[in-house]
Amino acid sequence: MRCAIAKKEQSVIEKIVSLAKRRGFVFQSSEIYGGLNGCWDYGPLGVELLKNIKEEWWKAMTYREDVEGLDAAILMHPNVWKASGHVENFTDPMIDCKQCKARFRLDTLGEAISEKKKEKILRHFLEKIEGDGQKFATAKKILEEDKSADEKFEALLEEKSLSFDLLSEVNCPNCGTKGEFTEPRSFNLMFKTFIGPVENTDNVVYLRPETAQGIFVNFLNVMNASRQKVPFGIAQIGKAFRNEINTKNFLFRTREFEQMEMQYFVNPAEDKKFYDYWKEKRINWYKSLGMTPEKLRFHNHPPEKLAHYAKEATDIEYLFPFGWGEIEGIHNRTDFDLKRHEEFSGKSQKYFDDKTREKYIPYIIETSAGASRGFMAFLIDAYNEEEVNGEMRVVLKLHPKLAPIKTAIFPLVNKDGMPEAAREIEKSLRPFLRVFYDDKGAVGRRYRRQDEAGTPYCVTVDTQTLQDGTVTVRERDSMEQVRVHKNELLEFLLNKFK
Amino acid sequence: MRCAIAKKEQSVIEKIVSLAKRRGFVFQSSEIYGGLNGCWDYGPLGVELLKNIKEEWWKAMTYREDVEGLDAAILMHPNVWKASGHVENFTDPMIDCKQCKARFRLDTLGEAISEKKKEKILRHFLEKIEGDGQKFATAKKILEEDKSADEKFEALLEEKSLSFDLLSEVNCPNCGTKGEFTEPRSFNLMFKTFIGPVENTDNVVYLRPETAQGIFVNFLNVMNASRQKVPFGIAQIGKAFRNEINTKNFLFRTREFEQMEMQYFVNPAEDKKFYDYWKEKRINWYKSLGMTPEKLRFHNHPPEKLAHYAKEATDIEYLFPFGWGEIEGIHNRTDFDLKRHEEFSGKSQKYFDDKTREKYIPYIIETSAGASRGFMAFLIDAYNEEEVNGEMRVVLKLHPKLAPIKTAIFPLVNKDGMPEAAREIEKSLRPFLRVFYDDKGAVGRRYRRQDEAGTPYCVTVDTQTLQDGTVTVRERDSMEQVRVHKNELLEFLLNKFK
Repeated sequence: MRCAIAKKEQSVIEKIVSLAKRRGFVFQSSEIYGGLNGCWDYGPLGVELLKNIKEEWWKAMTYREDVEGLDAAILMHPNVWKASGHVENFTDPMIDCKQCKARFRLDTLGEAISEKKKEKILRHFLEKIEGDGQKFATAKKILEEDKSADEKFEALLEEKSLSFDLLSEVNCPNCGTKGEFTEPRSFNLMFKTFIGPVENTDNVVYLRPETAQGIFVNFLNVMNASRQKVPFGIAQIGKAFRNEINTKNFLFRTREFEQMEMQYFVNPAEDKKFYDYWKEKRINWYKSLGMTPEKLRFHNHPPEKLAHYAKEATDIEYLFPFGWGEIEGIHNRTDFDLKRHEEFSGKSQKYFDDKTREKYIPYIIETSAGASRGFMAFLIDAYNEEEVNGEMRVVLKLHPKLAPIKTAIFPLVNKDGMPEAAREIEKSLRPFLRVFYDDKGAVGRRYRRQDEAGTPYCVTVDTQTLQDGTVTVRERDSMEQVRVHKNELLEFLLNKFK
Repeated sequence: MRCAIAKKEQSVIEKIVSLAKRRGFVFQSSEIYGGLNGCWDYGPLGVELLKNIKEEWWKAMTYREDVEGLDAAILMHPNVWKASGHVENFTDPMIDCKQCKARFRLDTLGEAISEKKKEKILRHFLEKIEGDGQKFATAKKILEEDKSADEKFEALLEEKSLSFDLLSEVNCPNCGTKGEFTEPRSFNLMFKTFIGPVENTDNVVYLRPETAQGIFVNFLNVMNASRQKVPFGIAQIGKAFRNEINTKNFLFRTREFEQMEMQYFVNPAEDKKFYDYWKEKRINWYKSLGMTPEKLRFHNHPPEKLAHYAKEATDIEYLFPFGWGEIEGIHNRTDFDLKRHEEFSGKSQKYFDDKTREKYIPYIIETSAGASRGFMAFLIDAYNEEEVNGEMRVVLKLHPKLAPIKTAIFPLVNKDGMPEAAREIEKSLRPFLRVFYDDKGAVGRRYRRQDEAGTPYCVTVDTQTLQDGTVTVRERDSMEQVRVHKNELLEFLLNKFK
């Protein structure tokens, strides 16, 4: 049963990856050179969908009085990442196979091993450490919990006193050699490079692993230039980079990705209020753009799993074909970040409230969305296969505001006057909407092509158009058609996209 | 004379850098840590101006049938940069001072030396090489040309047989030691990093130094997905990085910058036609957004100065306070790029024309604009100081489409009903326009603040508004005021931004 579901799930992703390439949503980066793992290129339809998602986010987040925009550089002063804790803590545990030199992330090693195989490993492992009372007790406690072999395996790997013993029972996923792994050690996920011509430690800079720090270090600059008062926010869209060892699931875990982050600076006494406010605001944003509400949920982090900077944290998760996955995080970061930057830069980051005469470092409520993950969630959520008149149609039911092409225009046949009338309509819409003109093949096939691209409206110019000036407008999801006069067409369509 | 001009020019840039920081257009990156040389952050007003420039470019370049959009990753397969020639050729000549270890770009070393000093250096240099007939003859030829000492100095540095001798007469701009420089050598301007956990030569990847290659390697993917036929283009906006040794002139030469590039694929027989077409199209784009026509010109590259890939090339230059500077390049790149990628990837990049039955590698006409440089040019071009009623006003005469804030709304006084009426108007405009509400200080001062931000329209709510529902709309440049009924205000304003 589990296997069958896994297969079906995988095939949805496969279909979407294939559609994405065929129709120009997403290509593998540097494909003609065999690709670059963990990097993707957005094609003609993809770049529009991504742009539209970012634009809707930007409008929702910055077209308000209390949030300002920002676009900080990707390269920042290296001390930023010392202050943020990334130089010290942004690491994954890694092991090498001594035999074949392949490298693995310790915490995801289990993904390459079947559940059955794991059960066997766990039995051998327990026999092996039987003589060591302390280890045996710790292991037994974990193994007696009511969990799957997958989960038990993972828990043992996380337990530092046991992981090396457990590894001695594991075969290398690459060469098959048993138990020849190095001790786990930390690997920093920041990409580093050198600024200026000298490659030494003084000149190391990092590609930012998150956009948030660009906001924190500009807190005072933005507040002063914009004359904002607490509470207020700073919003930013931009690329970030993480040198992931194991990339996976299409756009879900990549090395280069785009974030949409907003940091809201509040009086510490009001942190709970604004945390709750932004939680609701953000999940509703996805719903307002048509994402299936049943496939969205909050996953609150239990206190013992909170990041070092967080007082409260939740993920907005989407139900991907491979399971629930985070598309946005909302965090109460307290005064951790500004305090650290004050300490490391020597510049006061305090806010003076001239009404209450209070002086304090604001708390920060963060909403951190993945633009690339959001893109993938919107694409998957829109994907539908339907039977229409005995034929299968693939249709992307994207929200009209997100659709890459807003309207397609088809002349019915190549008859005198018809292409000209269609071209005229195209010309009149083009300055206002991203339109697409198609006169190739049967109209039914042209509809299907637009359904696959997620185009919400198709306008057909036919014999009647030449007589009374009306055209057919066909709506993508219902496939219903109405006749509209060409002079009223622009307004008719613009109303649909409001 | 020369000096006086230089001083006046410098002060315009200084004023703009100061305005940019004060009003939140541009901040120094990581400023609280002392900044990161060659990187800048765009503040609340700057991010909107930059977004608007990019959006206008995107509409002009991709809202047409023959150009598709793309957003390729910054990290690409390293072989891309072997094929493009960047690994081998994208270098600057560098020298070190042996005494203080400071490093300089050979070709810009002269910038740190006064003209008078150069004349002295040239005399000593000539005396020194008098014994060497060959060198002396070469040097004399250069020195007898009708050029300034600056230009002669530069020409001698460019001459490989002479540069080292010339350097022996030069004092280090850092420590002052005379003639203790290393031999010039090549330094690659690409930032490099390592992908994956192992830092060895197999895993080197580069931060792209230009966005163009992302387009070239996607030529076939985009063409197939979009069913385009030659001639057609691919447009892209994105960050690029160059490890410049000497950054300068605010946003003009930076290490991190944004490009807006379009590559147009044509039949080789039509290269001239489309080169001329895009030249005109592109310079007109700047003019259509209000850039002073007299401050724009083409600078055609003479045949002997063409890049290795180019058959014809021109720069669109803007007259900055420091002189003419390139803001966009238009190049006929021939089939150089696709041919190289065919060779290095082993994948055919040929196009088959099903009408003429021809098979060929298309020529590429490139339009390569700097978004960051364009931003700076638009900002400087808009900057005006005017005397109004005996007072100086600073006004950014930005094109309404580029202005960060479209409309400001002022309640005249804090009288019953007036703030409420103003808030109501703000609310009705906000979904359609980026508006700004200001009720602080005298109206005259509020106008000045918006003038400095480039806001084209200010709406004032006064006593008459409460009586007859009309408001005052004041236009930024003419300062003329008209009364408009609040119910017609949105349409009135939207018409101005069409």
